[in-house]
Amino acid sequence: MLKHNSYFEGGVQSIGFERHGRRQTVGAIAAGEFHFDTAGAERMTVVSGELSIRFAGDAAWHSYPAGTAFEIAANSGFDVRAATPAAYLCEFL
Amino acid sequence: MLKHNSYFEGGVQSIGFERHGRRQTVGAIAAGEFHFDTAGAERMTVVSGELSIRFAGDAAWHSYPAGTAFEIAANSGFDVRAATPAAYLCEFL
Repeated sequence: MLKHNSYFEGGVQSIGFERHGRRQTVGAIAAGEFHFDTAGAERMTVVSGELSIRFAGDAAWHSYPAGTAFEIAANSGFDVRAATPAAYLCEFL
Repeated sequence: MLKHNSYFEGGVQSIGFERHGRRQTVGAIAAGEFHFDTAGAERMTVVSGELSIRFAGDAAWHSYPAGTAFEIAANSGFDVRAATPAAYLCEFL
């Protein structure tokens, strides 16, 4: 029922589950910079630490500390940078 | 740097990381009831869904919805019950 996911040789890892027919993952990001593409739209809530995000088509980095959230459109992508390990909740919308 | 943990045949899974020299895990709990013992003290914050907790020495169940947190003393334990899959952040204090 729960599913372990690992990306970038373990630099990003998450546990997937489902609530009310919608997939969610809760995971951690090691210090570093990573790129993710989206199929469906996602809401990412930072639950520990802080993430810097560069959205597709935007040159600037935006900072999201614990307690804040951002959304990514379907068929898009984003770069994520963590200065120190951070944790997030990802809801597939 | 990130570490995958699996308990109860995958019914509880988490990703461990470290911030400021303190260990944290972010994880998910499948629907069901599980018992955990603590070595050090922990703070558990529910980040998705809702958990019911029965603390050691207390017969009553207490409900913790997403956005709330509870702490467990060192060398203690607790029962956790999830009606539907839920996610949490655990900080080792």
